[in-house]
Amino acid sequence: ASKKLVNSVEGCADEALAGLVACNPNLQLLQGHRVALRSDLDSLKGRVALLSGGGSGHEPAHAGFIGKGMLTGVIAGAVFASPAVGSILAAIRAVAQAGVAGTLLIVKNYTGDRLNFGIAREQARAEGITVEMVIIGDDSAFTVLKKAGRRGLCGTVLIHKVAGAMAEAGMGLEEITKRVNTVAQAMGTVGVSLSSCSVPGSKPTFELAADEVELGLGIHGEAGVQRVKMAPVDQIVTLMLDHMTNASNASHVPVKTGSSVVLVVNNLGGLSFLELGIIADATVRTLEGRGVKVARALVGTFMSALEMAGVSLTLLLVDEPLLKLIDAETTAAAWPNVAKVSVTGRKRSREAPKEPQEAPGAAAAGGVASQRMVLVLERICTTLLGLEEHLNALDRAAGDGDCGTTHSRAARAIQGWLKESPPPASPAQVLSRLSVLLLEKMGGSSGALYGLFLTAAAQPLKAKTDLPAWSAAMDAALCLAPGTVQSQTSRAQQKSTPAPPQSAEAAAEATKNMEAGAGRASYISSARLDQPDPGAVAAAAILRAILEVLQSQGA
Amino acid sequence: ASKKLVNSVEGCADEALAGLVACNPNLQLLQGHRVALRSDLDSLKGRVALLSGGGSGHEPAHAGFIGKGMLTGVIAGAVFASPAVGSILAAIRAVAQAGVAGTLLIVKNYTGDRLNFGIAREQARAEGITVEMVIIGDDSAFTVLKKAGRRGLCGTVLIHKVAGAMAEAGMGLEEITKRVNTVAQAMGTVGVSLSSCSVPGSKPTFELAADEVELGLGIHGEAGVQRVKMAPVDQIVTLMLDHMTNASNASHVPVKTGSSVVLVVNNLGGLSFLELGIIADATVRTLEGRGVKVARALVGTFMSALEMAGVSLTLLLVDEPLLKLIDAETTAAAWPNVAKVSVTGRKRSREAPKEPQEAPGAAAAGGVASQRMVLVLERICTTLLGLEEHLNALDRAAGDGDCGTTHSRAARAIQGWLKESPPPASPAQVLSRLSVLLLEKMGGSSGALYGLFLTAAAQPLKAKTDLPAWSAAMDAALCLAPGTVQSQTSRAQQKSTPAPPQSAEAAAEATKNMEAGAGRASYISSARLDQPDPGAVAAAAILRAILEVLQSQGA
Repeated sequence: ASKKLVNSVEGCADEALAGLVACNPNLQLLQGHRVALRSDLDSLKGRVALLSGGGSGHEPAHAGFIGKGMLTGVIAGAVFASPAVGSILAAIRAVAQAGVAGTLLIVKNYTGDRLNFGIAREQARAEGITVEMVIIGDDSAFTVLKKAGRRGLCGTVLIHKVAGAMAEAGMGLEEITKRVNTVAQAMGTVGVSLSSCSVPGSKPTFELAADEVELGLGIHGEAGVQRVKMAPVDQIVTLMLDHMTNASNASHVPVKTGSSVVLVVNNLGGLSFLELGIIADATVRTLEGRGVKVARALVGTFMSALEMAGVSLTLLLVDEPLLKLIDAETTAAAWPNVAKVSVTGRKRSREAPKEPQEAPGAAAAGGVASQRMVLVLERICTTLLGLEEHLNALDRAAGDGDCGTTHSRAARAIQGWLKESPPPASPAQVLSRLSVLLLEKMGGSSGALYGLFLTAAAQPLKAKTDLPAWSAAMDAALCLAPGTVQSQTSRAQQKSTPAPPQSAEAAAEATKNMEAGAGRASYISSARLDQPDPGAVAAAAILRAILEVLQSQGA
Repeated sequence: ASKKLVNSVEGCADEALAGLVACNPNLQLLQGHRVALRSDLDSLKGRVALLSGGGSGHEPAHAGFIGKGMLTGVIAGAVFASPAVGSILAAIRAVAQAGVAGTLLIVKNYTGDRLNFGIAREQARAEGITVEMVIIGDDSAFTVLKKAGRRGLCGTVLIHKVAGAMAEAGMGLEEITKRVNTVAQAMGTVGVSLSSCSVPGSKPTFELAADEVELGLGIHGEAGVQRVKMAPVDQIVTLMLDHMTNASNASHVPVKTGSSVVLVVNNLGGLSFLELGIIADATVRTLEGRGVKVARALVGTFMSALEMAGVSLTLLLVDEPLLKLIDAETTAAAWPNVAKVSVTGRKRSREAPKEPQEAPGAAAAGGVASQRMVLVLERICTTLLGLEEHLNALDRAAGDGDCGTTHSRAARAIQGWLKESPPPASPAQVLSRLSVLLLEKMGGSSGALYGLFLTAAAQPLKAKTDLPAWSAAMDAALCLAPGTVQSQTSRAQQKSTPAPPQSAEAAAEATKNMEAGAGRASYISSARLDQPDPGAVAAAAILRAILEVLQSQGA
């Protein structure tokens, strides 16, 4: 049997419904039955009640769609099994006793559901209760109509919404029944899946090869109508849309250029929402490419087949009055917040803001300082290139052994930049440019750390470039730590600001005895680390290089 | 590599975000960046903007939570990778240009995210933009605090909600930042999973045995803190709640008797919603058993780890002012319709309605009719018992070979009923009782069909019991078909009403050449069926039995 988070196979349906009701205080269970109802039944006096249901395993359908503006209640069967006639009848009686103006049963087209809801309807009628029933079949998988008709799939949820909005607006049973029957004819659903699903206590109902997907599935783990080779989503979506809108398919939905549709992209259970978004993207693009107007698009889990890793697409042909019903308010927990705006025809992107111009009035340093800056940068580069192997060796003990390589990459990037054009005159601008350069070219966490450091250090140097300003720059850079990442490098230097190279080197040596606070090394026990941190060694070497140039230049 | 519905590994994050934006016309992409923003940025003038984001693969987080009352925008990285600094900065600039009163970055506690959001913040500040950042760590898995701190998990979505409600209410950046930092301290999250997940193009990041579950996972397929044996959900939920609320766990959330909490039951991706409901049920029960008041419960997919078949529980300690923020309106697509009512303290069930009393004025038939009725019923029973093997043999050709067994079970149930007490005087009551009896005792679709037939047939016999009434009863029963199921039996009899046994027998024989319209046999090609339908044969035998008794009694 497959792996499931359940208490017992027998208890699944009851407990799942109990959980849904417990977490939605607007619902109540009907004692002795697997029935959930709105807890404010009395407020429905004089309105039409809507009951739906079917086997469990399709959550959030159907109980997730109970609420003002959608269903009045649902009757759930065991997993993938029809609900008991007695429970359906009990639900009908309960809403009748609340004084509703008739009840409509919304039933997915499956033999068992038709029978059991049908019998309950007859028994209720025998008691003098007004009940109607609509059978929903939105399946577009079978190209030749089965005698049993089209299966009821995710489109049923749209019927819940349409009927719910009409009932909430006070319309009568006959009008709702008629409208719903018409709407149900104007939709189609088709699914694909990467996997089957398994009823608790059982094995998966079919197997698929690693390079196959199943097209045209039902929602009970039954196999579909066609097995196709794995392909990019755009192709699979094209196949699905072709299949469900092809006029030679007896169960097609007649969507063509100029049609307006509501699209539902429904997770059959176990598909990642990343994939669901990719499929939604492909579907909207493909439909719009065919001149179809996507009026609304609902993306999420509506009618699942347990943990099936698949998706179904539902298309409902709509006009403005029908859209109003789709847009109407509801308190149903599983109905998503859908924007009341057409998907097609909206501008989907906006221009990114321009990079701000550097302020022309920024303090400009003289030519001499700029020359000294170039010498400092060159010395840093040669120093780091000379340390490549040493830093890599240190890093192999604690990380992935690329610390030297990363710093050399940075050094070469800086050398290339210096060769291309003279660095800007202002130290603030030099640090800002370096920050961008290292973020882009050095990469990894080291690039991010240097980028962070340099960005912050640039700020105090905008107005002045004297010694206190440089000291403030170091302060600004190092004080970032609590707010972002307390790097080993910055902690090694934190005690003296600006850190003289001697103390920086001592601090780097002291990282031997520190535990990593972030990154990959933080998951290695400190006992296994007996070498200094390579990043701290590199930082100390940089400070030493700066000091030596400044001393030789007579700072 | 694992099986995925994608176009390309490289395009996943872009296409998933594009799909989400396409289907939500309230959002727009920022050109050249993996950034989604509210399309009505201009309406935010003078309010605080909220930006969040992180790696892709956690959908619907974060873009699903963009909307009025929640996030202003998000910046997405590649799958499970931090977003680019340049894109974060572009998003900050875009909202700044719309004239917002400062921006708050809401960042999950991961090294890469802290670095990249931190750098973007510094660069934005360097441009004179007001930006603050909060780091969210709600993980309760590690009992000894890691230097890197608690990881950011599903609780982050609650922070989006709280901050969003405050920003929408016009509160200032400082006030929101302060409040959010306090709220973030009052929550904990822990997950369990049946499986790992796999980044597109890669294999799953860890493997679990068939009888093991992983406790304390992150949301990137990284392994958790403990591997435990598969157990019933109640035990697993107890383990999770114990772990996350245990005071000796350095990252626990101090929930105790008397505490009020918001509970989030979060699908990590691939778990069935049936299981999610069962877990929600167990969690609410367990918390209430400990005297904890569950103020609100959110059940669904909020922060996923691709297709991981697992669940996380988040507990947030709340008071009334905080609940108001949780309850505030939002247009964010992925925020569910949560009832603004406490979960704990509500009555979760209502009494089922009583069975209606049979009307005392129902037409009573005389003793003679009742005696004849008993004879008819007895003859039907012996006939069916005699046919058991024949019917089973016919059924083995088309179905599961139990048609005779099912009918014998019905016959014995009727015999038992006749022995217990004399049948009621009114034919309508006899048929109604038989209907209930067969629904309960005969079982299967046959039981349902007979139940349906008898329920409908009983109605015309309530007022009168003469020959036209019996004819009307047959009509009523057979005319149900279009509305419910057009059974083979009823179709075989449809041409003559009431069907004389001779024509019924001929019609049963004719079912040889019919295709099944429903049930299991409908999926077998008609070429393989060359025997009459066993149900039709049984129905013809019943009619023959009735006729013989009536003729012998001189009807």
